[in-house]
Amino acid sequence: MSADRLRLGMVGGGHGAFIGAAHRIAARLDDRYLLTAGALSSNPDIARASGAELGLDPERSYDNFGDMAQIEAGRQDGIEAVTVVTPNHLHHAVCKVFLENGIDVICDKPLTTTLPDARDLLAIAQQNDRLLGVTYTYTGYPMVREARALIESGTLGAVRLVQVEFAIGWLSAPLERDGDSKQAAWRTDPAQAGPSFVVADLGTHCFHLAEFTTGAQVAAVSADLSTFVDGRRLEDNANLNLRFDNGARGQMWASMVAAGETVGLRLRVYGERGHIAWHQHRPDELHLAFNDSGKRTLVRGGPDLSEAARRATRIVAGLPEGYYEAFANLYRDYADLIESRKDGTAPDPLALWAPQAEDGVRGLVFVEAALGSASRDGAWTVLSLDA
Amino acid sequence: MSADRLRLGMVGGGHGAFIGAAHRIAARLDDRYLLTAGALSSNPDIARASGAELGLDPERSYDNFGDMAQIEAGRQDGIEAVTVVTPNHLHHAVCKVFLENGIDVICDKPLTTTLPDARDLLAIAQQNDRLLGVTYTYTGYPMVREARALIESGTLGAVRLVQVEFAIGWLSAPLERDGDSKQAAWRTDPAQAGPSFVVADLGTHCFHLAEFTTGAQVAAVSADLSTFVDGRRLEDNANLNLRFDNGARGQMWASMVAAGETVGLRLRVYGERGHIAWHQHRPDELHLAFNDSGKRTLVRGGPDLSEAARRATRIVAGLPEGYYEAFANLYRDYADLIESRKDGTAPDPLALWAPQAEDGVRGLVFVEAALGSASRDGAWTVLSLDA
Amino acid sequence: MSADRLRLGMVGGGHGAFIGAAHRIAARLDDRYLLTAGALSSNPDIARASGAELGLDPERSYDNFGDMAQIEAGRQDGIEAVTVVTPNHLHHAVCKVFLENGIDVICDKPLTTTLPDARDLLAIAQQNDRLLGVTYTYTGYPMVREARALIESGTLGAVRLVQVEFAIGWLSAPLERDGDSKQAAWRTDPAQAGPSFVVADLGTHCFHLAEFTTGAQVAAVSADLSTFVDGRRLEDNANLNLRFDNGARGQMWASMVAAGETVGLRLRVYGERGHIAWHQHRPDELHLAFNDSGKRTLVRGGPDLSEAARRATRIVAGLPEGYYEAFANLYRDYADLIESRKDGTAPDPLALWAPQAEDGVRGLVFVEAALGSASRDGAWTVLSLDA
Amino acid sequence: MSADRLRLGMVGGGHGAFIGAAHRIAARLDDRYLLTAGALSSNPDIARASGAELGLDPERSYDNFGDMAQIEAGRQDGIEAVTVVTPNHLHHAVCKVFLENGIDVICDKPLTTTLPDARDLLAIAQQNDRLLGVTYTYTGYPMVREARALIESGTLGAVRLVQVEFAIGWLSAPLERDGDSKQAAWRTDPAQAGPSFVVADLGTHCFHLAEFTTGAQVAAVSADLSTFVDGRRLEDNANLNLRFDNGARGQMWASMVAAGETVGLRLRVYGERGHIAWHQHRPDELHLAFNDSGKRTLVRGGPDLSEAARRATRIVAGLPEGYYEAFANLYRDYADLIESRKDGTAPDPLALWAPQAEDGVRGLVFVEAALGSASRDGAWTVLSLDA
Repeated sequence: MSADRLRLGMVGGGHGAFIGAAHRIAARLDDRYLLTAGALSSNPDIARASGAELGLDPERSYDNFGDMAQIEAGRQDGIEAVTVVTPNHLHHAVCKVFLENGIDVICDKPLTTTLPDARDLLAIAQQNDRLLGVTYTYTGYPMVREARALIESGTLGAVRLVQVEFAIGWLSAPLERDGDSKQAAWRTDPAQAGPSFVVADLGTHCFHLAEFTTGAQVAAVSADLSTFVDGRRLEDNANLNLRFDNGARGQMWASMVAAGETVGLRLRVYGERGHIAWHQHRPDELHLAFNDSGKRTLVRGGPDLSEAARRATRIVAGLPEGYYEAFANLYRDYADLIESRKDGTAPDPLALWAPQAEDGVRGLVFVEAALGSASRDGAWTVLSLDA
Repeated sequence: MSADRLRLGMVGGGHGAFIGAAHRIAARLDDRYLLTAGALSSNPDIARASGAELGLDPERSYDNFGDMAQIEAGRQDGIEAVTVVTPNHLHHAVCKVFLENGIDVICDKPLTTTLPDARDLLAIAQQNDRLLGVTYTYTGYPMVREARALIESGTLGAVRLVQVEFAIGWLSAPLERDGDSKQAAWRTDPAQAGPSFVVADLGTHCFHLAEFTTGAQVAAVSADLSTFVDGRRLEDNANLNLRFDNGARGQMWASMVAAGETVGLRLRVYGERGHIAWHQHRPDELHLAFNDSGKRTLVRGGPDLSEAARRATRIVAGLPEGYYEAFANLYRDYADLIESRKDGTAPDPLALWAPQAEDGVRGLVFVEAALGSASRDGAWTVLSLDA
Repeated sequence: MSADRLRLGMVGGGHGAFIGAAHRIAARLDDRYLLTAGALSSNPDIARASGAELGLDPERSYDNFGDMAQIEAGRQDGIEAVTVVTPNHLHHAVCKVFLENGIDVICDKPLTTTLPDARDLLAIAQQNDRLLGVTYTYTGYPMVREARALIESGTLGAVRLVQVEFAIGWLSAPLERDGDSKQAAWRTDPAQAGPSFVVADLGTHCFHLAEFTTGAQVAAVSADLSTFVDGRRLEDNANLNLRFDNGARGQMWASMVAAGETVGLRLRVYGERGHIAWHQHRPDELHLAFNDSGKRTLVRGGPDLSEAARRATRIVAGLPEGYYEAFANLYRDYADLIESRKDGTAPDPLALWAPQAEDGVRGLVFVEAALGSASRDGAWTVLSLDA
Repeated sequence: MSADRLRLGMVGGGHGAFIGAAHRIAARLDDRYLLTAGALSSNPDIARASGAELGLDPERSYDNFGDMAQIEAGRQDGIEAVTVVTPNHLHHAVCKVFLENGIDVICDKPLTTTLPDARDLLAIAQQNDRLLGVTYTYTGYPMVREARALIESGTLGAVRLVQVEFAIGWLSAPLERDGDSKQAAWRTDPAQAGPSFVVADLGTHCFHLAEFTTGAQVAAVSADLSTFVDGRRLEDNANLNLRFDNGARGQMWASMVAAGETVGLRLRVYGERGHIAWHQHRPDELHLAFNDSGKRTLVRGGPDLSEAARRATRIVAGLPEGYYEAFANLYRDYADLIESRKDGTAPDPLALWAPQAEDGVRGLVFVEAALGSASRDGAWTVLSLDA
């Protein structure tokens, strides 16, 4: 509720949209943004009704994101940043027009549906000197940041093995055919989601989490993609073996047919001496185990944590934080980055941990490599910017 | 960010105050309140600086809560509700003046330092037809509400046993003498905290949680109060046996010297056929076990939950909610209650689950009974409004 | 399967007896005993049939424990030790006759049904220089021994608080009236169980566990005993507050009506700096938490454990041990003690951790104090050998 | 301690051998075997000393397993079964000579070091009508058997996904070069272990567990094998993708360089409606979760378990069983099978769940396919008896 909140717009996220509401709560939590304008749906009626519901000034509740970008860019009190929460296939066009109008962008992941599009957005953001944040939400969790800090500090020794998975049971049955779930429909529709479902939707989270925490890069993948639900046009399960540039090996599992699972995002990283384990269901805990010295549990807010974890913490140990607080950490980082650019000051190096366009591009590099490997029955496929 | 937010004031909660910040985030989460005025500290300099930090209009950043109550009550755009987060000994005076000026009050617990004061506030709230919310935060957790709904529905059979504890290690050493911890100082000082430390601070949470979930009332207590840290003037550990009005028995443990614990609030309720268990560290889970049918875990957002739990849920199962969301549930309930009164409509019965003055009074009844029992070496002492 | 196994007899434990079978497996696990004789039931037919089932020489399968004691004592190859697993009311007579015949005794707990009887057996054992082991099984677990070693070493600082509970849901309904459960029948029958059910049956385990691990002694108790099942003649739930001789305070809960629980034995000990927590369901883990340095989990077989824990361990970390192995640790200790006496050598000091007659006597001191307190509505009652 | 124990021999397992001692305890637990003869080491001095330590008749403590087979086969009171716990490369020769002498064999896994050898032993066992048990110990756990029964019954719907891992940190450093660890030395030596380390040692457990519980067979594998420790000649980490004959997909991870892990054997099986999860560290629990009906935990000894689980259970729910009891379940099954053959009666169908030669052969089929895939950089490789 401070005086200097950033004026924020939103594209997508209208009535009933799950992820739009989450972005709004995340943006509001630390009172660094004020929602000021929106093109909240591609359906004008829904766009207007949603704007009213959220208390937007009617003249700033737009039918069309292109109009919104131009008009807001021309206003003295125009929005300074915009959140993009449309289906994937629109990300490129929406991000492009706002960036080109000088407005900072915070875009849901995956950044685009193709690698060339992602590279294009990166270039546009650079040319316009604007932020293009990509909300890999889970690296906003304090204990994920602690994991990165620990691994960077060498506590585990050199990283050898990564096990990462994102298992969800939501689409074990063909809900996309029910007509009830708009989300299920667009996410499984190649025209809206792009050429991949679970690799793009869940696998990119795993991929970013693995690279974020280990500092190593995935060099090559061998992918086994499957579609278990009859009639579904995109893969709903992905089993991958991974090779990292530092010699580490890994496995990744991403699934929407893991019946009984709910947001089962889990990471384990093994070094020469020990490992870390983190599960999104209990995000305040980071488990460590060492061959020589046994098992420890680090707790958010607890003693002896890194500056990175402490900076991402709002409340004392023992009072749990959750998904919204993790998400809000990204929004806070983006606010820091935007404000430091406006002020001409150096950004907090830890704010730079929040994922941006480069991370979005790498996500698409990964998706294309996984699809390429699968198309050649799992042949090892190198991750390449030129894919 | 809706158009019809309630204008909210705050007394206490200035710079560095832990609980004030938590109340502000909780109030903001669902965009039902707008912080508009404050008397944020008894120290005028801190009050003013804190108001500026929070972006308050300087003229609505008061030195004195009495002035604030009168001036705000006289303004067309005056605050409609006020949050009271001062040390305990001021609760009575602050709540009284706002209630008498027709302003709804949301007060941290314990409601007062004495039972007569608590009864007085209840009467004033009733006479003025104003809300007096008391923030026993933990009953805002969705799965605590699920526990209540389950027990009400008879799933466990008649309640026989309650085990409830609130264990914290924070004051295992005399931090109150360091000068660094203002909180430790006032909470252990009879002049500010009242005649009880852990019974009033932690025990009242346990007490409310037990009565809230079981629907039974504690009829009598046998208390063993101890002070482990030399020089401390109030009890820092409380062991209690409980008898309930329905014949159930229980144990309560409240401690600030439980070294290694952080907000260790845990509830178990046993009925004829099975039990529920809930731990604040993993608030999204409610564990059930039955003699006949084994063990289940209910998860916030999962299948087959009560309306009470669903109403208190913001996000899908598997994405964790935490303390702020629980706290925000109370703020949302209070907003519902205030608005329904203003609209002249019947409140949502589930919003009435949020604790109010009667619960605050019962908390003081409990504190006085526990102190009375301890003064007679643990003799069973009846809970009485006339204590 | 070594050549020098001790010849073991058994009184009680015939066909269908749960605890007799457990004693036999425990005795066999390390191949230190050979079951050689028995008076396996007070019913001669069952005694004989049970002996045949176990492969006993028919002439050493007795109808009567008195005959067995005399005849075996007179044989060159007579039994050297006897296990006593009768209902409680027979323990005194059985132990007495074997001790007086020079045969070492391993008796299930509680040692007797009255304190004078327990003191009597202690004296008899001392006069005859024979072992009188009392199988408080749970202190055979390696990580319980680790807890004791840790606390002795001062890792936690001075002990301040103990929370111990033994919660079982088995007798939430009056199974003793079904006729099916012989166990339920005798355990709830004052004539066979003695004047207490859950305090004697479960509370003595808690009591021994607390004293064993902390090295402190319970000085006084305040007890609230209840009977929830109509028609039951002994208490089925016990809530106790405890005061220890070193100033520590504690709570104990023992229940047979904790619906949904199965052998829920749990211990927590808090010192000035941190605490330990142990749960019988996961016996290979000992949880530690400290105010200053966070949380650790010690694992049986893991690094940096005490000699006491290592000595009680058979297999590497990660391969779980369970109840039988804990039980076998007592049998191994008793074999060590018996053999060192026979050899005239000093016993291993760690073998002396296995509970003996003194511990059995203290158990009865505790039972009598708890019953005394309950009879005076929870008045604090001192534990006294003269009770 | 029954009269009709099977006379058991042992080859290998002399002084200091970890797995030999485990076999002996497992064999003894239910008193169905009596250790009678042994060729406990290839070193005659150690063989003799180990025999003496175990109380063997000196003339039945052999220097040479071939002599032992012939002499024992010729004795009236000769051994009826033999346990084989030598390094892998000797399994074929030892099993062969005992089978050909009409003695039942219980052999540690992997059955042999090559597939032709495994097929050869299967043929010999069949020709001689003798048992050739292969101790994949982990399928002796009651809750693993419950998992199989549940999946067979269709509770999960058709199986779609399997995630199985066996992670150990033991050989994160080159202990095999220390000279201290005989085990580390032979297991990493191709001459004794065969052409594979972790696939043969740990992967075969995963493989058997997956096939045992799902009833599906692995049809093809894609393997990424690595050696992280310099100078080690066999793989110490294996990442595999799996395809099953019923269309299910899976991942397997087997590692000896998973620092901080101890016997981390974990299985998850996902069907159309829900999944099961089991972890060897908490073997008495089987976790279930369903999209429609939430989460349950089945507990060994608890209500509503299958006959398969109940048959493998010795003690009530809540008193933990561990590794030895699981192991003993295999020994008990083998005793049932041997005795039913001798009696000419049909074996208990559930005793047939204990792994035998066919399972051993399939293990080698899997090892050869994994090695074949790895040699072709992860190309999918069909499991074939003709490999």
